[in-house]
Amino acid sequence: MEPSCSPTPSRERLRRAPGRPVDPGKDRVILAAARALIRAGGPAAVTMERVAQHAGVSKVTLYRRYANRTALLEAVVRQRAQRLCRALRAPPVSDADVRARLYAFVEALLAFLCGSEHRQFLRALSGVPQSPADVQRIWQLGPATAHAALAAFLRAAHAQQQLHCPDADAAAEQLLGLAMGLDLVRSLYRVPLARQRRVHRRAHAQQVVDGFLRAYAGGFTAAAVASPGPSAPAG
Amino acid sequence: MEPSCSPTPSRERLRRAPGRPVDPGKDRVILAAARALIRAGGPAAVTMERVAQHAGVSKVTLYRRYANRTALLEAVVRQRAQRLCRALRAPPVSDADVRARLYAFVEALLAFLCGSEHRQFLRALSGVPQSPADVQRIWQLGPATAHAALAAFLRAAHAQQQLHCPDADAAAEQLLGLAMGLDLVRSLYRVPLARQRRVHRRAHAQQVVDGFLRAYAGGFTAAAVASPGPSAPAG
Repeated sequence: MEPSCSPTPSRERLRRAPGRPVDPGKDRVILAAARALIRAGGPAAVTMERVAQHAGVSKVTLYRRYANRTALLEAVVRQRAQRLCRALRAPPVSDADVRARLYAFVEALLAFLCGSEHRQFLRALSGVPQSPADVQRIWQLGPATAHAALAAFLRAAHAQQQLHCPDADAAAEQLLGLAMGLDLVRSLYRVPLARQRRVHRRAHAQQVVDGFLRAYAGGFTAAAVASPGPSAPAG
Repeated sequence: MEPSCSPTPSRERLRRAPGRPVDPGKDRVILAAARALIRAGGPAAVTMERVAQHAGVSKVTLYRRYANRTALLEAVVRQRAQRLCRALRAPPVSDADVRARLYAFVEALLAFLCGSEHRQFLRALSGVPQSPADVQRIWQLGPATAHAALAAFLRAAHAQQQLHCPDADAAAEQLLGLAMGLDLVRSLYRVPLARQRRVHRRAHAQQVVDGFLRAYAGGFTAAAVASPGPSAPAG
């Protein structure tokens, strides 16, 4: 099982593009323009016309890279999911590596959840009428892809006896739930998130990953499992 | 620390109401009318005029029970939170009781998350302009109250050495995150939830509570902790 996210489609397209070579700088500008439209108005705000206008490129340039708005939308979401899952790209090489990569992944997830990009997108998602097909495609390429990448990573760790989690899909959903805690709920109710500062996100990432690893400990030695452990309570 | 939710304000009001006794049947009809308005349009849809009309009662009858729309809104949210936290009302009496009550609480939470009431409310919350004060009050009396009730329950279990969780607030948020998993995300992206059927919710509740108890095991004997435990992996 391949734990990495799929390669950026825009890069694949760059390799395959016919005629004169495309400008990667323009590609970045196009994706940034599409991202800005999505965060403000959700996928419904993305049209080829508007993206070309916001990016300051011609529609010919845009269509040369993306066949239609769906392809462009997908490229934006894939790029985001890929960034989020960077730490899970390769299977873990040691027990310590499992822990370090899960820390990095959870920290990246928390930073994303706390960011204005995600909070604005959440509002747009519900506040502006959206096509169910667009929204469900974003689920597939975004959250569901991150879930699958995490499950594949845990499956590899299980196969290498670094963890004991025979049901990697369930374990991945549990770790995502632990990481988010109530922060998605806080976003919805527009109250401040619990972990706005990086130092708090890092502490939270360590706490949830340590708790997760305690519950799914496999090849870890007792000493490597951080306290508070499943030992007898004080007093 | 009192792990129960606060008593229903409507009952307090019934005891204190001057003049002829109020009709509890009418109280139920009023709260049901307010709930229906909230699920359709969020708190912004609740006015005393509309609630009276939907409930088929006079505004005098309504004002006799609730001083204003804020008091009525609060009564609705308190009633919901109280139902959700029913299993946490009293401190646990044994290790088995901790487990059984957490199962019941998580099952109730999952049923609520899967219900049309919550899914409609989520859309109304973001889809219709809402007063930040209303939304933040609902957070306080709803999710934050459930979190506090769960933390108080875990604190009591820790004090009685049934669990080892010195930071009960963090542990409670972790259990809530585990229980929700990705289902709130699925709701937002309008894809089917993972646990629509009661039998799946029950299995999930047992899985997350067992995982949580493994991570926070205190007075539990090893035999009482369900597999897969923190034992060495097979093979």
